[in-house]
Amino acid sequence: MTAQSLGVCYYPEHWPEERWETDADLMREAGIAYVRIGEFAWSRLEPNPGEYDFGWLTRAIDTLHEKGLKIVLGTPTATPPKWLVDRMPDMVALDADGRPRGFGSRRHYCFSHEPYARECERIVTALAKAFGEHPGVAAWQTDNEYGCHDTVVSYSRAARDAFREWLEAKYGEISRLNEAWGNVFWSMEYRGFSEIDLPNLTVTEANPAHRLDFRRFSSDQVLRFNRRQVEIIREFSPGRDILHNFMGSVTDFDHYKLSEDLDAASWDSYPLGFLERDTDDEAHKLKYMRVGDPDLQAFHHDLYRACGRGRWWVMEQQPGPVNWAPWNPAPLAGAQRLWAYEAFAAGAEVVSWFRWRQAPFAQEQHHEALLLPDGSRNEAYETCRAVSKELAALDCKVVNMRADVTLVFDYESDWAWRIQPQGADFSYLKLVLAFYRGLRKAGLTVDIVPPSAEAVKERKLIVLPGLMCPNGELINELATSPAMILAGPRTGAKTDDFQIPSGLPPGDFRKVIDFDVWRVETLRPGAQVRLKNRDAGLCLERWREFARPGEGAMPIIESEDGHPALLANGKRAYLAGWPTEDLLDEVIAYCLEQAGLPRLTLPDGIRIRDHGPHRFVFNYLEDEQDISAFSGGGEIAVGGKRLAGAGVAIVAKRGDKVDR
Amino acid sequence: MTAQSLGVCYYPEHWPEERWETDADLMREAGIAYVRIGEFAWSRLEPNPGEYDFGWLTRAIDTLHEKGLKIVLGTPTATPPKWLVDRMPDMVALDADGRPRGFGSRRHYCFSHEPYARECERIVTALAKAFGEHPGVAAWQTDNEYGCHDTVVSYSRAARDAFREWLEAKYGEISRLNEAWGNVFWSMEYRGFSEIDLPNLTVTEANPAHRLDFRRFSSDQVLRFNRRQVEIIREFSPGRDILHNFMGSVTDFDHYKLSEDLDAASWDSYPLGFLERDTDDEAHKLKYMRVGDPDLQAFHHDLYRACGRGRWWVMEQQPGPVNWAPWNPAPLAGAQRLWAYEAFAAGAEVVSWFRWRQAPFAQEQHHEALLLPDGSRNEAYETCRAVSKELAALDCKVVNMRADVTLVFDYESDWAWRIQPQGADFSYLKLVLAFYRGLRKAGLTVDIVPPSAEAVKERKLIVLPGLMCPNGELINELATSPAMILAGPRTGAKTDDFQIPSGLPPGDFRKVIDFDVWRVETLRPGAQVRLKNRDAGLCLERWREFARPGEGAMPIIESEDGHPALLANGKRAYLAGWPTEDLLDEVIAYCLEQAGLPRLTLPDGIRIRDHGPHRFVFNYLEDEQDISAFSGGGEIAVGGKRLAGAGVAIVAKRGDKVDR
Amino acid sequence: MTAQSLGVCYYPEHWPEERWETDADLMREAGIAYVRIGEFAWSRLEPNPGEYDFGWLTRAIDTLHEKGLKIVLGTPTATPPKWLVDRMPDMVALDADGRPRGFGSRRHYCFSHEPYARECERIVTALAKAFGEHPGVAAWQTDNEYGCHDTVVSYSRAARDAFREWLEAKYGEISRLNEAWGNVFWSMEYRGFSEIDLPNLTVTEANPAHRLDFRRFSSDQVLRFNRRQVEIIREFSPGRDILHNFMGSVTDFDHYKLSEDLDAASWDSYPLGFLERDTDDEAHKLKYMRVGDPDLQAFHHDLYRACGRGRWWVMEQQPGPVNWAPWNPAPLAGAQRLWAYEAFAAGAEVVSWFRWRQAPFAQEQHHEALLLPDGSRNEAYETCRAVSKELAALDCKVVNMRADVTLVFDYESDWAWRIQPQGADFSYLKLVLAFYRGLRKAGLTVDIVPPSAEAVKERKLIVLPGLMCPNGELINELATSPAMILAGPRTGAKTDDFQIPSGLPPGDFRKVIDFDVWRVETLRPGAQVRLKNRDAGLCLERWREFARPGEGAMPIIESEDGHPALLANGKRAYLAGWPTEDLLDEVIAYCLEQAGLPRLTLPDGIRIRDHGPHRFVFNYLEDEQDISAFSGGGEIAVGGKRLAGAGVAIVAKRGDKVDR
Ligand SMILES: [Zn+2]
Ligand SMILES: [Zn+2]
Ligand SMILES: [Zn+2]
Repeated sequence: MTAQSLGVCYYPEHWPEERWETDADLMREAGIAYVRIGEFAWSRLEPNPGEYDFGWLTRAIDTLHEKGLKIVLGTPTATPPKWLVDRMPDMVALDADGRPRGFGSRRHYCFSHEPYARECERIVTALAKAFGEHPGVAAWQTDNEYGCHDTVVSYSRAARDAFREWLEAKYGEISRLNEAWGNVFWSMEYRGFSEIDLPNLTVTEANPAHRLDFRRFSSDQVLRFNRRQVEIIREFSPGRDILHNFMGSVTDFDHYKLSEDLDAASWDSYPLGFLERDTDDEAHKLKYMRVGDPDLQAFHHDLYRACGRGRWWVMEQQPGPVNWAPWNPAPLAGAQRLWAYEAFAAGAEVVSWFRWRQAPFAQEQHHEALLLPDGSRNEAYETCRAVSKELAALDCKVVNMRADVTLVFDYESDWAWRIQPQGADFSYLKLVLAFYRGLRKAGLTVDIVPPSAEAVKERKLIVLPGLMCPNGELINELATSPAMILAGPRTGAKTDDFQIPSGLPPGDFRKVIDFDVWRVETLRPGAQVRLKNRDAGLCLERWREFARPGEGAMPIIESEDGHPALLANGKRAYLAGWPTEDLLDEVIAYCLEQAGLPRLTLPDGIRIRDHGPHRFVFNYLEDEQDISAFSGGGEIAVGGKRLAGAGVAIVAKRGDKVDR
Repeated sequence: MTAQSLGVCYYPEHWPEERWETDADLMREAGIAYVRIGEFAWSRLEPNPGEYDFGWLTRAIDTLHEKGLKIVLGTPTATPPKWLVDRMPDMVALDADGRPRGFGSRRHYCFSHEPYARECERIVTALAKAFGEHPGVAAWQTDNEYGCHDTVVSYSRAARDAFREWLEAKYGEISRLNEAWGNVFWSMEYRGFSEIDLPNLTVTEANPAHRLDFRRFSSDQVLRFNRRQVEIIREFSPGRDILHNFMGSVTDFDHYKLSEDLDAASWDSYPLGFLERDTDDEAHKLKYMRVGDPDLQAFHHDLYRACGRGRWWVMEQQPGPVNWAPWNPAPLAGAQRLWAYEAFAAGAEVVSWFRWRQAPFAQEQHHEALLLPDGSRNEAYETCRAVSKELAALDCKVVNMRADVTLVFDYESDWAWRIQPQGADFSYLKLVLAFYRGLRKAGLTVDIVPPSAEAVKERKLIVLPGLMCPNGELINELATSPAMILAGPRTGAKTDDFQIPSGLPPGDFRKVIDFDVWRVETLRPGAQVRLKNRDAGLCLERWREFARPGEGAMPIIESEDGHPALLANGKRAYLAGWPTEDLLDEVIAYCLEQAGLPRLTLPDGIRIRDHGPHRFVFNYLEDEQDISAFSGGGEIAVGGKRLAGAGVAIVAKRGDKVDR
Repeated sequence: MTAQSLGVCYYPEHWPEERWETDADLMREAGIAYVRIGEFAWSRLEPNPGEYDFGWLTRAIDTLHEKGLKIVLGTPTATPPKWLVDRMPDMVALDADGRPRGFGSRRHYCFSHEPYARECERIVTALAKAFGEHPGVAAWQTDNEYGCHDTVVSYSRAARDAFREWLEAKYGEISRLNEAWGNVFWSMEYRGFSEIDLPNLTVTEANPAHRLDFRRFSSDQVLRFNRRQVEIIREFSPGRDILHNFMGSVTDFDHYKLSEDLDAASWDSYPLGFLERDTDDEAHKLKYMRVGDPDLQAFHHDLYRACGRGRWWVMEQQPGPVNWAPWNPAPLAGAQRLWAYEAFAAGAEVVSWFRWRQAPFAQEQHHEALLLPDGSRNEAYETCRAVSKELAALDCKVVNMRADVTLVFDYESDWAWRIQPQGADFSYLKLVLAFYRGLRKAGLTVDIVPPSAEAVKERKLIVLPGLMCPNGELINELATSPAMILAGPRTGAKTDDFQIPSGLPPGDFRKVIDFDVWRVETLRPGAQVRLKNRDAGLCLERWREFARPGEGAMPIIESEDGHPALLANGKRAYLAGWPTEDLLDEVIAYCLEQAGLPRLTLPDGIRIRDHGPHRFVFNYLEDEQDISAFSGGGEIAVGGKRLAGAGVAIVAKRGDKVDR
């Protein structure tokens, strides 16, 4: 079993060489095992075209290696230097307004630009040859945060030409594309693939099928770009893990599929930044301002565990205030530790802080680090050291288990619902998060999974809200599964061609539970669909479907105007709308009962996670909470029954003994 | 007298040919008389340049005709196919940012592009020759929804060149233009017409006179584009009505003037979509979410009755949720029927549902129809059938009467106030709608009219808020009219050259009532001008004028700071600001009393309309209402004294007998 | 001593020549001494390239001069005519989106465009030669409102090339620039100055050092542009004052530095427009809707007094509603008079109304003036006449004194904090204004000063919030100053290269008071940092620093979570966050006590200013206020103890006698 350990992101090129050894010593003292370096250093690795300078990097790696630190080496392809951009000015992406996205920050390249891709192969080959077999190099990171700053989609000429080829490869005949997209509508028919433009700057919305294919293409371009680097590294750096650091909340390409080319997944976790930037309830933002959303990180942990097929890291962990959210508060004392344990409890191999030392220059001056800009120790340094000691005492190791409960998250559905939200505030990601939150509030440990037959096998509860277009194998698996299944809203709403299924939604998903959705309506904020025998807090909002039960299906909950809100046929249920949080709690309780699964009712802000021999209890509030009811009754190894704000308790699971 | 009947919009090209006969049968069963087809089918009518394929359309028309349905044939010029755009890429409009508006949806053309206009002449000629004398073709529709998606104004080179010519034709000498626009201001003087650019992308606002002339030019370009089609159709399809389907809430070109080239006007009515997209009071949107604004459709009905000189249709009537508003709720049961009767009560010849069958592909997948995507009957199908039976039983016919009350709506004023709102929330359209709502709440039947002398003759009450620049004939007519006249705010505020009249506003309108407006102020939300002897609910908001009464004029209502709020001289009154809804009710009550007209006080959400032998009573609320006080005392032919939510009552007018 | 007088802005070219004499007579009757003319008249002065027509201007100047009026002649370079733009189309600025900013309004030029600058030299030379020694010409105004409509920064090719030169001149070697900017970060290193682009359209934020240098460059370009005109005027128009009319709230270039080339500063004061456009508290906007913010004008007066080294004007004073703010209410009766006295009380030489007569055409039709469009007298005409009589009776003269209290305002800090606000609502200008408001509420007369050693000498209280990078001389002066010093938040936070000081903030400012800022956090609206022993109204919001006191420094106020909120060491204090208004009052009270300065507690909306022999008392509320407690006890020359809304009292200072 893999021991769970700590890491850090380090930029030796930012600091005097004579400081490096001190840094390495301090890292060891803080209990750090892994150091990621190199991923933005192209201008130092190749200061002039074709003129490599790898000496400094060799010395940096040697210094760290000699102190016993393991290196994760990044490829520098997220930051091509200016001389390279000047040599091929059309390598930059164009935004949806048609404007070139210029040099001067990062990620200024178009995934479809072949000459740039070849430049990447060149630099990656040189690096892999130079460092691939260095004993200090334990792993690689390709590029950095694909998709960050909205960089997956490009409206460049290179993208347009590649899209035409992609479409031709997919459809073969233009008539098949015209039919799949329904181009007879509004005379959008094409006579050949070379007539097809990118779907931006149209007078009103472009064809959603056109847009979805462009999204799929754009995702594929990222995969293809990444794979070229992976193949080179595999050749020249045998035995090393290859990872990529996915960025939280980015869903513009398929992380499951890209991860198939990797050995493990990793992601960059900024709990306070994401709360501020990516959630939209003002009161919620204030409440969790200093500890972060109680479920958002856990959701990503579970997602990337699936991506990495059990192997995953947090590659960048927020250490203090960051610089990039609209507002950037400081964590509550202890919050950074809570975040680390939330990751370890979800099976992370490594939690790596971003960054080692706060940069006094350039864009991230107000992004905190383990060290202050002057090189002295900051708060997170002490946190790191303390966690490393606790980890050692607990002998934490990665334990992979198959959870009873699984929640399907699907990238294509996310693109599809963004293309056609129908209501201004519909969001697939938020819908799935709402279900995840409900499950977690019930004390459950959840596997997030891709929409595959394999992923849902051997479960007791399978939840798949909003899954646009479940494939045939998945449907067949579900149709014969003994598990409790909760689908909807919008599950099975579209075909693979972004059409309404013939015979109405949910199309072939009827094999799982039989009903028709004959109407969809969306509701502005404040509008509610009231339910029979329930008060206003338990209602549908935002999105509502009018469903007609088919064979065997019966309404479990009905609206006051006489339509099913929850349909069920034995252990298969379909929710015909967007539930309020309280209604979702009721629906989940119903499903757990059907599934024969136990259910807790965790208090506000308290979350638990079972991992191997331990139950972890987390307090996301700022105030102390009594957790005795949820600790599971075992011996409390860390923390206590009264858990301080941002506190963590680690309890030996009943019957187990804490191994220390 | 024309019988009132039902229609539907149909896209045979979307469905297998073998289905067409079934569709026609179902249409007959639903009581449909008119079928609009063809208006987006260019890529099917001319799949390759110059290669026409009219066979399928012939078969479709024959099929419908054989079942006794009457065809409205649309010209396909709103959706030029890709091959055409590729042949003349500069045919697309440029938006205000200078970006070309690309292919991939619809309306991607610039009205000023002469080669494209010639292509339109070519396809329209071919269609008119092929189908002009077909016995099934009862009428034509030119293009589709001119101006939808903000497509009237284009900043292309073609538009610029045409604008220069238009200006030269208007002004002759550049010195006259410089004087009319006041170009001495900020050294904006031109030495020739070829120096004039379009008024976009200026550093700060462009000259309002420049902008207004550009608006007038842009409107004229639409008229000219449409007229070329009309002339062709007249030549090759004698005896058929020519219509255009205007889009609700679009005011970017002069619908009165364009309609002069048509036989009848028609418009596309989406009560729930417009409520959500085009109104701005959140509580109002929630309240009327499922039935629509009680006055917005009626306003348009009255407007297009004026456009069509008494002859008008609803060409597209919302049948269920649509796909294009920010949120898209379902109508309350019965709402679609209410909408149909609101149109018939206003004298519509045809109410035509959009569309026959919900498309499972492309942009409008979530736009409901009479049939579901699978071809089965949806709610609106049954509504259509029921209405058709009621219509037959009532023997409804178009009755044209001249209303005692008239409200002037003027497109140029709308452009002018949008160019120079002075307060961020001033809107001429909303001002006129507020007056319309006040009149309708008083139980009145209103004619909306253009600002012409002829239109205001033989009236008892003439209302003209915000009419920028009444022409001399209109002023002379008003000056000698025995009617009660209510003007203001902002009536007569500008000359035809968009200048303040010499001698201050209202310029020559002083012949009607004598006063000066020496100051204008605009007020942010929350700011009020309190009135003497009135509580805060009766005040001026948003817009306020400081007026000085002239000869014979006296303040009827005064502000607490001592300025006239309502001025009057006998039967001429001027309102010097934007009234709250309650104040406007008081002002209208005053005017009705002066005019000797009766006045009702309809309860919230109830509206009435007298049409021929019938009084129609509409309930726009979701709850049942008692309407006995407003039914007029005659025999209730349809509905009852207690009217359900979205209900319609049809009452024989006292003394009349319901003709059935 | 200079007598304080009135002026007006006049556009003879807008009116018939036969009217000019009447206008001049009316000006004299209103007590006007100065008339600004000519600044937008290029198309009349040079109707065709190279063909000057100065005759009309000569006659206008002669007419005014003969009536005893003094002319301020403007250079017309803010409005190059269309023929000039057509000759050099690339003279226009490009906006941040890369779009050319077109002809059709004003300020459509790029400061870096050398051929345009030479055209300006040509026309200014011609004007200066023609009118420079005319006895009626008393002063000059260069251009008009540099920077208005966001026109300082241009992203043109001309700007890019000039920026590269500017950088090369500053840094000499590219390696020095790379180091100063920290370009090793994200591989942003350049190999030469010709590789550097402008910092727009980058994928995510550009390097803040890059942006700050671009801001400095852009400011320098304005200075350089202005200096070229000044040099010509000095040569051909000896003895005349040269001014520029700065626009309120514009901070995009360094007004102190530009003013070094001028004889006196002037600014354009629109109290109601600025309140509506530039403040952001809705309740505040409603409250002061008709009188204006009680401190915003005074702040600018004090700022421009510093710019002009004691000599300053209001070149444009709002006379009634304007046309350009989101809403444009009318002033309360008397407000225009209050504004004039607020300026005179701050030492203005001239208060000049904008404009003489309301233009019935072009962009500013709804901008009021002393005369109505029809030439009759408007409200502000009478106000002007009344003020002129009062001024004469009081014999008001400019008195320059060095205030005990000084507040540092620094343009570079403003640019820096706009580049890196860290919290979405951080604004340096608003921070400084908050301090200014606090000081003024305490009854103090304040000098706003640039961040120089000289400026802070001989003061009793020196306040410098947010001063990014105090220079060494200033720090040394402060370190030895006997004054009370109040700094922070964010004082000394950055080096001149936009880096965090080595050894942490406040860098060398530690010589003044010793502490470290080791952390910064920003807080969303609603989030508070509560303070020990203080209720919620006295807390930190928005911005908060975590400070560690150094030698001699002690916490005076502490947060509940145990960090210093106010640090002090004797007479040096540092505020570690953004205080609520009430907390700031407490801090200012503390500082005044330390400084041995008296303090008033003015009621809401009341402000005072001592100037020479007079105390002025202003009532910014709409209701009457009793001011006896604040009048200073002397004889009331104007007004009374009960001061009407928008009222002004002028009181002989105790011991002085009003000189009349
Ligand atoms: Zn990162
Ligand atoms: Zn339509
Ligand atoms: Zn101005």
